[in-house]
Amino acid sequence: MKTVDNLLKQPSAWLSVGANTGSIISSRVRLARNIDGRIFPGRAGEEESVRLWHDLQPVFEGLSALCPAVSLEMNDLTRVDKDVLFERHLMSSELAEKGPGSALVFKRDESVSIMVNEEDHLRMQAMSTGLNLFGLWKIINTVDSEIESHVNYAVSPQLGYLSACPTNVGTGMRASVMLHLPGLSLMNEIKPIIKGVSKIGLAVRGLWGEGTEASGDMFQISNQTTLGEKEEAIIKRLEQIVLEVDEHEKKARIRLMQKKENLLRDQIGRAYGVLSQAYLLNSRETLSMLSHLRLGIDLGLVVKWKQAMIDELFLLIQPGHLQKLEGKRIGAEKRDMVRARLMRKRLASVVSDK
Amino acid sequence: MKTVDNLLKQPSAWLSVGANTGSIISSRVRLARNIDGRIFPGRAGEEESVRLWHDLQPVFEGLSALCPAVSLEMNDLTRVDKDVLFERHLMSSELAEKGPGSALVFKRDESVSIMVNEEDHLRMQAMSTGLNLFGLWKIINTVDSEIESHVNYAVSPQLGYLSACPTNVGTGMRASVMLHLPGLSLMNEIKPIIKGVSKIGLAVRGLWGEGTEASGDMFQISNQTTLGEKEEAIIKRLEQIVLEVDEHEKKARIRLMQKKENLLRDQIGRAYGVLSQAYLLNSRETLSMLSHLRLGIDLGLVVKWKQAMIDELFLLIQPGHLQKLEGKRIGAEKRDMVRARLMRKRLASVVSDK
Repeated sequence: MKTVDNLLKQPSAWLSVGANTGSIISSRVRLARNIDGRIFPGRAGEEESVRLWHDLQPVFEGLSALCPAVSLEMNDLTRVDKDVLFERHLMSSELAEKGPGSALVFKRDESVSIMVNEEDHLRMQAMSTGLNLFGLWKIINTVDSEIESHVNYAVSPQLGYLSACPTNVGTGMRASVMLHLPGLSLMNEIKPIIKGVSKIGLAVRGLWGEGTEASGDMFQISNQTTLGEKEEAIIKRLEQIVLEVDEHEKKARIRLMQKKENLLRDQIGRAYGVLSQAYLLNSRETLSMLSHLRLGIDLGLVVKWKQAMIDELFLLIQPGHLQKLEGKRIGAEKRDMVRARLMRKRLASVVSDK
Repeated sequence: MKTVDNLLKQPSAWLSVGANTGSIISSRVRLARNIDGRIFPGRAGEEESVRLWHDLQPVFEGLSALCPAVSLEMNDLTRVDKDVLFERHLMSSELAEKGPGSALVFKRDESVSIMVNEEDHLRMQAMSTGLNLFGLWKIINTVDSEIESHVNYAVSPQLGYLSACPTNVGTGMRASVMLHLPGLSLMNEIKPIIKGVSKIGLAVRGLWGEGTEASGDMFQISNQTTLGEKEEAIIKRLEQIVLEVDEHEKKARIRLMQKKENLLRDQIGRAYGVLSQAYLLNSRETLSMLSHLRLGIDLGLVVKWKQAMIDELFLLIQPGHLQKLEGKRIGAEKRDMVRARLMRKRLASVVSDK
């Protein structure tokens, strides 16, 4: 789809694109909301879902916070389109599996998006680079209020906002921060950090959210609880922990430079060597090596590349983006070839710039 | 030791140094002999071993086939010297562990050598690049006869030459050929080949002989039996099998190019990428990657390097040679750094020649 094609011409809202160095990549705040008197998506039939979407579409498209808005119905999208939207963190893989009535509306710059008829009637999110949870909370709060002026949400006076899954009841809010932690990974200190963060009621997840493993040393930290606490309190606690983890990462990087400089140079050198010379690259390995290159740039050990280019590659080597770039569907095995060709081209072009 | 230092300035007798492409690297023929009326080394005391060495040294140094000869007593050698001699296939690791009376005499060009007081009183060998078993057999036969004109060998009229280990009784001859088989390795066809060769009474061993694993896709094929067969018959059979394995390797390479060109290019590209960019390289990994580069050169996929350079590196990255190059003893961990520095330097220098 042309609309999705155009996304590849702009940076994704969640990737820093050189905006900031260090470990903090991006922030997201999302709210789960359901419309009072309507059956929850899991139990609603096709007709009811379509009706809800048709009722709400004009509301979303009129929202000032989403202007200019892009509306996409799941039924109109190809597999590759959906993959691209997922990889850009505009929607979940669950929404991609849904049929008529399920849709995605987002602001063209990708900073705000609403999933319609996913697990809940509405899942709205705001995202940006860097650590910006309070800012995003304000934005999504405005969107929420604007919508509420048109519809009645399903609310319980005791519990707060109702949702399909009990883990979202209450605020319906999930705030998360994406961190790049190669220093802690290389120092073998990532596990205790994850354990510590989990103990205080926060979740640590991989690059693509729930149920995904960390790849490319990317980790998402988010709140687990949505009940019995104000949104601002949840966000404040999360932000504190994120800053602590960032501090740990900084210290790990210093220790790496002091005690394991050769290991570090080795990982970075190999990453460049393989990425620029391989003919077959799967996405897991590629992410891991891009992570090491990114660390090298952050530490000043690699001066040939800009962080923005590496960040862009993080996204472009994903299956959906890769197929979009090629303009056609490509099987997994063939993708490894295409991915390697892309890397060789991009990295070689930089070397010859030297 | 200066004598050993000088070896690094010349190509080793067993490495092809660009002499021939394809899978056949080098040939060796060795004879085990013991002196009649003398106690076998395993049971001889220090005094008897030293006496034997002193009795025989003038004989060896006078042999025309060893001229100009180099004589080295184990007691005079450092650990690194011994490693270098072992890596150049001039002597065994067993000889390196022996004390007074154990010695090595070799022709300066490394083509002929005699170990004294290893497992047997004498282990003499001739080696050269390519497939040359009959030629080497002639050379070592002449050496054997020349020595026999000065001493009486321990011989049984029924069994033939006697030796410390029954596996050598009879001819006392072991002929072997070193093969480089990356095509069969990459096609996962190496195991059935080894099995087939073993079934017909030949042994397949790794780069450094008995008890060593194959590394860098280098395999030695040698005769197992020394009893009840003439030397020429043994050699003829071995040569036939080697030519068959070489044929299999050629076919495997053709199939690789036809069916797995991307896998092949990937392995070769990664080998170059890592060897030229890593900061830590152990010898096993380095051999494996040099093997892929060598294959790339053989197949014309890599044109930047000469095979001679890769063959030289096969040897220079070995622990003994590496320490010799550095002029000092270096622990294993530090060696990985030095090895990577050597590779970066050598491969970078070639790239800039382009």
